[in-house]
Amino acid sequence: MVDQFDPNFTENVINATGPKTDPRMRQVMTSLIRHLHDFAREVELTVDEWMAGVNLINWAGQMSNDRRNEGQLVCDVLGLESLVDEITFSRAANAPDAATATAILGPFFRTGAPHYPNGSSIIKTPPTEGGEVTFMHGRVVDSTTGEPIEGVVIDVWEASTNGLYEQQDPNQADCNLRGRFTTDKDGKYSLYCLRPTPYPIPFDGPAGKILQLLDRHPMRPAHIHLIATHKDYKPITTQIFDSEDKYLSNDSVFAVKHSLVVEFKPLEGNDQATRELEYDLKLKKPSST
Amino acid sequence: MVDQFDPNFTENVINATGPKTDPRMRQVMTSLIRHLHDFAREVELTVDEWMAGVNLINWAGQMSNDRRNEGQLVCDVLGLESLVDEITFSRAANAPDAATATAILGPFFRTGAPHYPNGSSIIKTPPTEGGEVTFMHGRVVDSTTGEPIEGVVIDVWEASTNGLYEQQDPNQADCNLRGRFTTDKDGKYSLYCLRPTPYPIPFDGPAGKILQLLDRHPMRPAHIHLIATHKDYKPITTQIFDSEDKYLSNDSVFAVKHSLVVEFKPLEGNDQATRELEYDLKLKKPSST
Repeated sequence: MVDQFDPNFTENVINATGPKTDPRMRQVMTSLIRHLHDFAREVELTVDEWMAGVNLINWAGQMSNDRRNEGQLVCDVLGLESLVDEITFSRAANAPDAATATAILGPFFRTGAPHYPNGSSIIKTPPTEGGEVTFMHGRVVDSTTGEPIEGVVIDVWEASTNGLYEQQDPNQADCNLRGRFTTDKDGKYSLYCLRPTPYPIPFDGPAGKILQLLDRHPMRPAHIHLIATHKDYKPITTQIFDSEDKYLSNDSVFAVKHSLVVEFKPLEGNDQATRELEYDLKLKKPSST
Repeated sequence: MVDQFDPNFTENVINATGPKTDPRMRQVMTSLIRHLHDFAREVELTVDEWMAGVNLINWAGQMSNDRRNEGQLVCDVLGLESLVDEITFSRAANAPDAATATAILGPFFRTGAPHYPNGSSIIKTPPTEGGEVTFMHGRVVDSTTGEPIEGVVIDVWEASTNGLYEQQDPNQADCNLRGRFTTDKDGKYSLYCLRPTPYPIPFDGPAGKILQLLDRHPMRPAHIHLIATHKDYKPITTQIFDSEDKYLSNDSVFAVKHSLVVEFKPLEGNDQATRELEYDLKLKKPSST
């Protein structure tokens, strides 16, 4: 009989895994059980502390719905989503013909954003405060050949200057600051958007509680989200960050990467915009990894 | 600026912890972040796998209410509650004048069970199938002096033979198989209960999903729950297990300990019961640790 007080407790739990378990599932759960147990022993976790953690996790689930994923946000403030993103894409990024670096999707993406012709604006509701209109444009090329790629769909979304995405804010028009553009035969795209501003992640739930307990702020540096897709290439999900943002070095969800920091340059002679952002992307074919 | 691709990613997340953080909180979260990240790197966790885990955790919270704690149950099937119980009480248990070993509380305890005189039965609703009435009795002594302790309240609860606790089963009377007894001047208590039967933990949620993915059964070996309290002693929460149970070596929540396995002996000459369980407890004063 297994004595649960013996030093083999963790091995006993791992060995309870049955023979029909999928090999990858076995690998993941073995590591998870070992690290969870090592954590508990290392800090001599008490019953009360463990129960506080259980309550926090249950709270995350109870707060989650189709507009909010609090379990994801809890992972984000612990750096887990950015780390998993790094792990998943690190090999591709380290290759000599590396594609553009990736970043986390975040909880505010919506499928089915409107398609616009190049040169259109995604600003449907003027911002309530501040807001610099930016002419964003660039070129998408094949990361191996350097040739321009026609027909790449670039899905762009950003928060308004009040820190809210349109689906969080009844005062913004549907799909405000959200749109899809398609590269032309020269691989070029262009649009008008807002220069992004920093904003806090929602901090009224367990993720906010963790930030408070760890004496951390909830701010994210200003950024624009992008997904680039093309039938012949691997899709890229990324965020680009304003080089002048003061939260660049202490993003509450740890998503900043050097290669994703961009400059919003002053723009003259354009009556629609006062800033310019030139941003090129590189895509990679699935066969080239 | 912090580059999140650098090998110091985990240290950067840990170092984001602010100076006003409680020292114990810092210690616990530092270890948790390190083990979570080590786990993710060790198995090269993908974005899809991570998101499956997030969904499972959100599901646990959404299923939890005042009658069910699914976050706790998820921990239980991974051995975490039993381990934390072991950690919290291991020093006391290893002392020469050790008190009775402890076990997890489980999710079916209810406060305010009825008080009965010694020799009463907690069987308010006859079991729907099988069921051997057991005369349970014993003595509670001081773990240091061996002297009997008067006035110890023993709170007992168990599932019926259909595997359900009374609050899970509309066909059982309120507080069926649940009651409190008080030791007399000789430290003795006695009651009639059912010989317990094995039963599955609820497997219609994420804990059940984990068991299924790990090719494990949901059964718990037959057991009776006990809490013993006295104003001058440290309380004990424990479970006692039937030595003849076939799930003794593979409890789905890993709560079995050698010292908690007891014998339900055949009993003759008692017209109320066919089994006898003699079970003594040792309590320890708070000052004696």
